[in-house]
Amino acid sequence: MAFYRAPLTDMRFVLNEVLEAPMMWAAMPATAEFGAELADAILEEGARVTEAELFPLNQTGDAEGCHLKDGEVSTPAGFKAACKTLAEGGWLGLGGNPDYDGQGLPKMLTVAFEEMLYATNASFALYPALNNGATLLLDQYAPDPIKQIYLPPMHRGEWLGTMCLTEPHCGTDLGLIKTRAEPLADDRYAITGSKIWITGGEHDMVDNIVHLVLAKLPDAPAGSRGISVFLVPKFKVNADGTLGERNALSCGGLEHKMGIKGSATCVMNFDGAEGILIGEPHQGLATMFTMMNYERLSIGIQGLGLGEVAYQSAMDFARERLQSRAPSVPAAPDKPADPILVHPDVRRMALNTRAWNEGGRAFAAFVGSQLDCVKFHPDAAAREQAADLVALLTPIAKAFLTDRGFAATVEAQQLYGGNGYCVEWGAEQYVRDARIAMIYEGTNGIQAMDLVGRKLFRNRGAYVERFAAVMRADLASEASDTLAPFQRACEQELARLEAVTAALLERADGHPEELGAAAHDYLQLFGHVTYAWMWWKMARAAEHGLRQDGPAGAAFYQAKLSVGRHFIARMLPHTLALEQQIHAGAEPLMALDEAAFYPD
Amino acid sequence: MAFYRAPLTDMRFVLNEVLEAPMMWAAMPATAEFGAELADAILEEGARVTEAELFPLNQTGDAEGCHLKDGEVSTPAGFKAACKTLAEGGWLGLGGNPDYDGQGLPKMLTVAFEEMLYATNASFALYPALNNGATLLLDQYAPDPIKQIYLPPMHRGEWLGTMCLTEPHCGTDLGLIKTRAEPLADDRYAITGSKIWITGGEHDMVDNIVHLVLAKLPDAPAGSRGISVFLVPKFKVNADGTLGERNALSCGGLEHKMGIKGSATCVMNFDGAEGILIGEPHQGLATMFTMMNYERLSIGIQGLGLGEVAYQSAMDFARERLQSRAPSVPAAPDKPADPILVHPDVRRMALNTRAWNEGGRAFAAFVGSQLDCVKFHPDAAAREQAADLVALLTPIAKAFLTDRGFAATVEAQQLYGGNGYCVEWGAEQYVRDARIAMIYEGTNGIQAMDLVGRKLFRNRGAYVERFAAVMRADLASEASDTLAPFQRACEQELARLEAVTAALLERADGHPEELGAAAHDYLQLFGHVTYAWMWWKMARAAEHGLRQDGPAGAAFYQAKLSVGRHFIARMLPHTLALEQQIHAGAEPLMALDEAAFYPD
Repeated sequence: MAFYRAPLTDMRFVLNEVLEAPMMWAAMPATAEFGAELADAILEEGARVTEAELFPLNQTGDAEGCHLKDGEVSTPAGFKAACKTLAEGGWLGLGGNPDYDGQGLPKMLTVAFEEMLYATNASFALYPALNNGATLLLDQYAPDPIKQIYLPPMHRGEWLGTMCLTEPHCGTDLGLIKTRAEPLADDRYAITGSKIWITGGEHDMVDNIVHLVLAKLPDAPAGSRGISVFLVPKFKVNADGTLGERNALSCGGLEHKMGIKGSATCVMNFDGAEGILIGEPHQGLATMFTMMNYERLSIGIQGLGLGEVAYQSAMDFARERLQSRAPSVPAAPDKPADPILVHPDVRRMALNTRAWNEGGRAFAAFVGSQLDCVKFHPDAAAREQAADLVALLTPIAKAFLTDRGFAATVEAQQLYGGNGYCVEWGAEQYVRDARIAMIYEGTNGIQAMDLVGRKLFRNRGAYVERFAAVMRADLASEASDTLAPFQRACEQELARLEAVTAALLERADGHPEELGAAAHDYLQLFGHVTYAWMWWKMARAAEHGLRQDGPAGAAFYQAKLSVGRHFIARMLPHTLALEQQIHAGAEPLMALDEAAFYPD
Repeated sequence: MAFYRAPLTDMRFVLNEVLEAPMMWAAMPATAEFGAELADAILEEGARVTEAELFPLNQTGDAEGCHLKDGEVSTPAGFKAACKTLAEGGWLGLGGNPDYDGQGLPKMLTVAFEEMLYATNASFALYPALNNGATLLLDQYAPDPIKQIYLPPMHRGEWLGTMCLTEPHCGTDLGLIKTRAEPLADDRYAITGSKIWITGGEHDMVDNIVHLVLAKLPDAPAGSRGISVFLVPKFKVNADGTLGERNALSCGGLEHKMGIKGSATCVMNFDGAEGILIGEPHQGLATMFTMMNYERLSIGIQGLGLGEVAYQSAMDFARERLQSRAPSVPAAPDKPADPILVHPDVRRMALNTRAWNEGGRAFAAFVGSQLDCVKFHPDAAAREQAADLVALLTPIAKAFLTDRGFAATVEAQQLYGGNGYCVEWGAEQYVRDARIAMIYEGTNGIQAMDLVGRKLFRNRGAYVERFAAVMRADLASEASDTLAPFQRACEQELARLEAVTAALLERADGHPEELGAAAHDYLQLFGHVTYAWMWWKMARAAEHGLRQDGPAGAAFYQAKLSVGRHFIARMLPHTLALEQQIHAGAEPLMALDEAAFYPD
């Protein structure tokens, strides 16, 4: 009774009409082959494969979960076969370096495909999401012989990668890790320690699992400046790429979780397992950030995908559900009651969900476009500007997309009434599956600290100024009657953001607790401003499409403008509260004695 | 690893110092016996019994769930024995009429005990919650011989009651029910139909189950004006109160739900089951509202109780958890990291949770005080004023307490990082258990419609005027430096509410969709204003306690003022957004064609 069709019309609209991806690709030699037609064929086939292979396994996978027996982890029925099908279609190495059997797709396209993955099966989607981040890290930091051995089978989805960071006593504070690496002969290391919450740490879907493990060398400085990254495969790999003996690592347990039950969340024990140092010694945190930043956007897209499937499923339910009469005139007088969408409050929930989803889709694609620019653009200045925007927007993408994605699943669940709480409709699974996205990959609080600390305070607002300049340049061009409300809202909200930023920078000088106190609300404010901008872009493209009889069709453009107006009128005002809360500063938070928080 | 101790100090503070319950009880003959000392003894014993008997069954009950076999429903291990223990202690008939073996406690006390029930075991709490509403209805509407037979065993917890309203095609819109009642001899009726989502419809804890069932008589008018209430016992009851043969009703299935898994949510099939008409024919909806209003406040308290246990458990976790260093100076330089409460953003989450809980506790007790006034006050004008406030505040209590309770469980879960997502810590269960409270007993959207429709528009704002007069009279008395910010906030927010109310009433004339469009945000605004008022009351009592060396102690009063300041500075500003959203009106919601909502 869950319902999903990949929102291809909206994806095409965002890519081709809002962000003009084909024009951008054409301007960069490395992406010149990707025209609208090829992109479209990829998205259509991506929709087909995820809808056919993954969506049917979503509820069954949740019910069955993963199981550990004699050290082996079994994934839910159908996962292994689906993994093979997707791997053979090249879908698991979509953004990978083509020199090593990757598909080399622009990020703007892989973002759209990732949304389909998460929407159809968030548990499954995590295995390739980790793999993609791992290959990205190896592509950037591993020496060529290692790349030659490891990257092709990982890009082909025959092996999958993991990220082993957390230990029982430290998640956020990785400087505290205890896992150690002892040098062996031949540039090899013996890795010993225990890692927890390792997604896909052990499972039955592929021939080998490639762990990227944070550990400390014997001479490591204390804290986070003493961490290194090691590649530690489940099966040792011979020089010719064939598999050797089992490495000294094992799965010590599976977590029982609220959701994403088809994703194997493992305790991984490394007992002198052989590994290879990747990147510079003690620079592991910086090295790992290549992977972490990848995962942060990916997890943001988890929120988006789940918000989308939650919306579609709820609307599919609403299609048939009749309760009570419309406020003025019955809409279906021949039926015992009207469809629930006659009720303004039901529409409010539906429009909230939809406005977050559509704003989020544009935002994720926009971040993708900047990542493509960083990677492929021939002009250094363009690359630098894009890199600044990516640095600034990554924590927002992770936290805001997942906060809004979770809110969307909760709002969608509410649309069902009591059915939303019952397992068979699927709505409650989306809520459970979305909840983790606000927690892992750096909690959303950590993202907010990253935003106000590294991305704002450290450069005294330089990234924000850059963002404001780009946004303002985008706004200046036009303002028809239709677009004026979007333009005004953007100008007003950007001015608010700038004023809040300036005040915060001043207040935080010598008072670092002011950054932490403002962090969450500042990220929320920034997210709202960014979405307002995305809605401006979409409104502009929709108006253009209406005038030019664009490919998405008049009804689509009208609906887009209508949802956008709802966003401006009934969701964006939240910034008024955020502004005031940020100005309240740290004092109300810090006044209470620590002891007074704890229960007796 | 979950942690709960009934917040007795805060409960005493609210009862004795904020609402001055003992003085109120002394002024009413029926409650004159309840002094502070007796009330305290009851709360202490209530805390002991719920902590000892129910809390240990909460996680195990979630894991085990209820099971249906051969028509019999088994509750989780320990539930039956706990039910017996609580019944024997008189805890299951706490507010019941003492003429029929009830304990006759004031509502202000039963509200506090209900919070403990829901906090320690929300699944278990629902069985007595339904029973209490059922006995209230019977006490008001059943003829005396029926009361003599049914009420004593129900008050003693030997039998338990249920509420059978929903059918598969109708939850909100009860006018659509199909269950029918055919007259038999001796004022009996044969009830035939199928009901769903019946909490405690069948289980193994007690000897008999007393269903209150909505059904239609043969001559019933169409719609909600043709519904009647019938008492339909699982076992027929002889005139002497002994149990006769099994009635023609059975459990046809159990729902698989997101949470409250220890609560048996039953499909109940009535196959010509014998029942007794309760109240007037065709007046069943009005009759049932006695029970529904009881349940609405009770479900609000579910949100509160779960918010409280979620907060306490999270803080118990925080006590031991060390991650990263404080922004300025390390708080625990001798340890590898600082306690997480040094971080402003962690405090933000903790204070949000706590401010909702403490505001909610005062609010629930305040509604309880008005219910006591309605029931016991000797003066008719006082009863009438209290009745108006109860009518106005009941939908707010149900919806706002459950919205905030759910938000509190989500915020508390976030405090754990990844541990919050893992089952063994218990945090995720609170989220799942709290989610239903926004849905059942009339969705929170329905509560909002009740507020703007029946409680606002129908009397042209008369209840709101009354509320404003009472609140303003309460404010006028004093404004020390400490209290001035609370006073100012209340004045400002009350003025905002009045202005929004006036504008809405005007806009809604002839445009009923304006009510629905404003409903959710109006209820949220009203909830914020009400909590601001409660925080004013608490701040006043805390200041008084500080001056007079009050019983809760200086640290408690200081903390109370501190949490209150956080509420005013960092949570109340949400009203700015709500005001603007309400003024946006219905147009942005109603513009989009219904068909445009549905996925392709």
